Formats: sequence, C-alpha cells, structure tokens
Amino acid sequence: MSEIRVTERTRVKRGRKIASYDRGVVNNVIDESWVCNIGVSVDGEAMVQPSSHWRIGNEIYLHGSVKNGLFQTVMKGQTICITLCILDGLVFSRSAYHHSVNFRSVVIYGKGRLVDDADEKRAALDAMLDKYSPGRSAEVRPPNETEMKVTGVFAFPIEEVSAKVSTGGPNEEPEDMDLDIWAGVKPVTTVVGNLIPD
Amino acid sequence: MSEIRVTERTRVKRGRKIASYDRGVVNNVIDESWVCNIGVSVDGEAMVQPSSHWRIGNEIYLHGSVKNGLFQTVMKGQTICITLCILDGLVFSRSAYHHSVNFRSVVIYGKGRLVDDADEKRAALDAMLDKYSPGRSAEVRPPNETEMKVTGVFAFPIEEVSAKVSTGGPNEEPEDMDLDIWAGVKPVTTVVGNLIPD
Repeated sequence: MSEIRVTERTRVKRGRKIASYDRGVVNNVIDESWVCNIGVSVDGEAMVQPSSHWRIGNEIYLHGSVKNGLFQTVMKGQTICITLCILDGLVFSRSAYHHSVNFRSVVIYGKGRLVDDADEKRAALDAMLDKYSPGRSAEVRPPNETEMKVTGVFAFPIEEVSAKVSTGGPNEEPEDMDLDIWAGVKPVTTVVGNLIPD
Repeated sequence: MSEIRVTERTRVKRGRKIASYDRGVVNNVIDESWVCNIGVSVDGEAMVQPSSHWRIGNEIYLHGSVKNGLFQTVMKGQTICITLCILDGLVFSRSAYHHSVNFRSVVIYGKGRLVDDADEKRAALDAMLDKYSPGRSAEVRPPNETEMKVTGVFAFPIEEVSAKVSTGGPNEEPEDMDLDIWAGVKPVTTVVGNLIPD
C-alpha cells in the first residue's frame, strides 16, 4: 500500500523510532479498534469525546446526532483530531524507568465532510453495521426516513496521519541484566465474547 | 463517595439519561482503564495523544518526557481535557438504528500541576508501577537521578468531571419485537494475559 505523505503536524517528534506512515499499518489500527477519540477546539480549549468509527477506503467515518455540539464544530469546517490506540501489552522491565506498554496508535488531522447523499449515507451506515458483524446490514430492519434524518454521518480523509507501533520486550540497561528481577511482557487483548441473546 | 459538582462544561447535554457524577463510578473507570486520551488546543485546533495514566486520591496522573510538546502546553497553564473510555459490549438490535455499544466513559477538564517535590514525585511513579502489578515498585531497580530528571509527572484534579455509563440490552421499537432477527449483546473485555518472560 501507499506510503503517506508526512506533514509538519504529523511528523512524529517524540518516539521517532516507532513512527510509521504506512497506510496498511494505519488502516489495520482503524479497522481493529472499536473506539476512537475525537478532539475539537472550543474557545481555545480542547474537548475530547470517545466515539465509534469505521473506515471505507481512505476515509474514516463518524456518526451521531446532528445536534451534537462536536459535529456542529465539524460542520463549521474546523480541522479536528481523531486519535486511536490499541493496547497490546504491559512491558515489565528490571528497572522502574524502562517499564512501558506495547501499543499501536494513529493520529489523524482532517476536516469532515457531511455525507448527505441518501445512497452514500445509507451505504456508509451499512458499512458500520457490517464492521460489528459481517453481513449485519442485510439482516436487520433498515432505517426509516426519520431515523436517517436525525443521524449525521461524517467522513474524514485519512491523509494527514501518523502511526506509532511499539512491540517487543523491555529495554534494559546492560548493568540491570544480572539483577534477579522478573521481566517480560503481559499481552493485552480485547475479546469480543459470544452473543447473549435479548 | 461524594457526588461531584456539575459545571456548565461537564453538564452532559447529549445522553443525559446515562450521565453520572458519582466519584465511585469515575474512579472505577480511571483505575480499570490503561489508556487515556489527552487533548490540548494548539493555535485554535485540537491535538489528542493517547497516554498511560493512574490515580492517587482525587487526582489523575500523567507522565512523560519533559520535552513533550503536550506537557509544555500543560505547563503554560492551559485547561486540558482527559478522556477515558472502557468498551463493555457491542449491542445488536433488531433495527439498524438501535445498534449501539455498552461503555463507561469519563471526561475530565483541568489544569495540570507539575509534581516536582522529589519524594512526592517518587511516590507518584511508584503508584504507577503498582497499578501495572501490585508491589512492583518495591521489586525493581529504582530510578536514578538522571531517569528522575528526564521524567515529568503531572497531576490533575478530578473535579470538573462527568461520566457516562451505558449498560443492558438493545432498545427496540415495539413493532420490531416480532421480527425474526437475532439481537442481544456481545460482551467486550480487555484481558491481561500471563507474563511472557524476557
């Protein structure tokens, strides 16, 4: 897949060694994660809200009530920040200092596009359901006119974006390696269980 | 535990029925989650970074390189936004519209306090390690002077804060209840596995 063009804002300053601008890495984090965090600026201060998200091609999608204050900011044309993070492990080092976590994170900056074409909007909402369970959109009672009307759908280009990927075991100072202290990684996974029927 | 005073900024506007201002609920989300999202405003636009966090009493703690641009913004006295979200379930309804997720989220607004007293800073970093594994801070090689110097620790009051808690099965329109469509909840859990030794 294509390499992403780095901008001044997405050039990773801290942790350059774990930075990635690979579209495959970015898409994988977006597709595998269930929650993103949406940041907007209101009167010079940040407001961050967690949200569901999904991806179609090179756009990330959000949805919600059209009355949501956050989406009103998006509709005013503000460049917003969407951040995603998957925790993969707790990393235990022999020293306090080198404890860390393994993770995959993505930061996207972009202006939102209101998806208002009826067919495109319906296809986008179908794609969200199919992320939750493949084929789900074809099984359920489809949205009626009112339900479509109160739901806002917004698409953001996945262009001004950077990722960080931290993997592996602990960093250690050479002189700490002989200490009799347990070290290693406790893997962290997000598990979707079996359906508890309604 | 004490009820939290609601401010204009933390009064939940959307989803009031699931809003909570209970300190026990808030603390539980902070303690159980491994990743928070920190939002700052830079030149009128939001920047959001994922980070580890921990809690001591009525303060939430962050740490990182003192050179981190985000912490420089904190040190300038900006009120920042810290958001946490634990996903508890994917909720499948008989209609497309009523699909949702079960979650517990917390949004905190506050100004950071640089923890620079040596003893307090050390105790705070010990508390972080002990969140990852109880008693860990007493087992490891403690931080040396240089390691302490390059690490910035910031405490934020958990005062201007709100929570949302969504639980239970799907909402349904009465007329959808007779449709032959599966519905219910797939529980989502974050699992910390056994140590893979280094």
